Amino acid sequence: MKKKQPFRPAQADETNEDERVRRSKKAVLTATFQLLSETGLSGVTIDAVSRRSRVAKTTIYRHWPSRTALVLDACSKLKPKSEAPDTGSLKDDVTVLAINLASGLRSARWATVLPSIIDAAERDPELANLHSRMHAEMMTAFRAVVERAQQRGDLSRGRRLTEVAAMILGPLFYRRWFSREPLDEGFVKRVVESAITGAKEKP
Amino acid sequence: MKKKQPFRPAQADETNEDERVRRSKKAVLTATFQLLSETGLSGVTIDAVSRRSRVAKTTIYRHWPSRTALVLDACSKLKPKSEAPDTGSLKDDVTVLAINLASGLRSARWATVLPSIIDAAERDPELANLHSRMHAEMMTAFRAVVERAQQRGDLSRGRRLTEVAAMILGPLFYRRWFSREPLDEGFVKRVVESAITGAKEKP
Repeated sequence: MKKKQPFRPAQADETNEDERVRRSKKAVLTATFQLLSETGLSGVTIDAVSRRSRVAKTTIYRHWPSRTALVLDACSKLKPKSEAPDTGSLKDDVTVLAINLASGLRSARWATVLPSIIDAAERDPELANLHSRMHAEMMTAFRAVVERAQQRGDLSRGRRLTEVAAMILGPLFYRRWFSREPLDEGFVKRVVESAITGAKEKP
Repeated sequence: MKKKQPFRPAQADETNEDERVRRSKKAVLTATFQLLSETGLSGVTIDAVSRRSRVAKTTIYRHWPSRTALVLDACSKLKPKSEAPDTGSLKDDVTVLAINLASGLRSARWATVLPSIIDAAERDPELANLHSRMHAEMMTAFRAVVERAQQRGDLSRGRRLTEVAAMILGPLFYRRWFSREPLDEGFVKRVVESAITGAKEKP
């Protein structure tokens, strides 16, 4: 096993090459992501990524066989982060999650890029797949919070997680992308309250 | 003033020319709309529209100065139709509207094209403008129904129309484009019930 040699310049050719590869891959992914947010998916061509990253097209194709593969890789960093809070109250937990989401929708890069992915997902199965993975990750914290509430008996087990999710995420997404209205805290709180207390599940 | 001459073929050159112009404009708009639904906005170029419609590029540019102008015109037919029902009950009125909307989301062409417009609206002010006009029209019937309920006293005047709209349209849009889950009637009805009875407005 090779020992790490901190504070010394790398000597072996191999190390230099690894480092060069790592740097150019990073430049390509950064360029891809920048183009995605500036122009949407249609502006992301291998030509444009090559110009922006100053990495040769042949090198790009060596690491990613297609534009879609490159977009998938660049978007893997797109996941909106959200950890499941545990305040002991469903309403407080969900409020924390919804306020975080609203803040991401207002300012995070993924909020600008997502419509492009959703548009492409209408026609491209690979991007539809990426989109559903992103969506599943967005739901992880939400699922944890709702299931904990059902275990405590704070929420009827009959209430379907996906319906509660639709009633909370839906109005926030709607304001961000459809009506383009402000996502203020008062609105977010009323949405949570309505979704949790509102509908009674009728089979 | 010229009299209309029904059941007779047009004679004057002028009429023939008008008819030719009308037909080629229609072919261009149809081709634009087809390309929009098949490929999204990025596939709509003047070249592609010319190939599809068999109308010369110069003719297309004579009627529409830019791709955006052409897209705006083709999308002016995109409005989801919805007339305001008047059952005497807010819940029934809104349920009718929501079920119609869900049906459009499941099958209408505008549901496939809208993500493309929304994506472009993130960066293009003209398309953002088109999108907000489409949204305003979608809201007309909804607004009529809610205002009538407020006049009858069935809904607190404090409830903001835009919040009720977000709580109903949001979950439907979410299922269509984000979670890609079924938009069954049970779900739609529970969304309406939750939105109307759920949240109490706290200023």
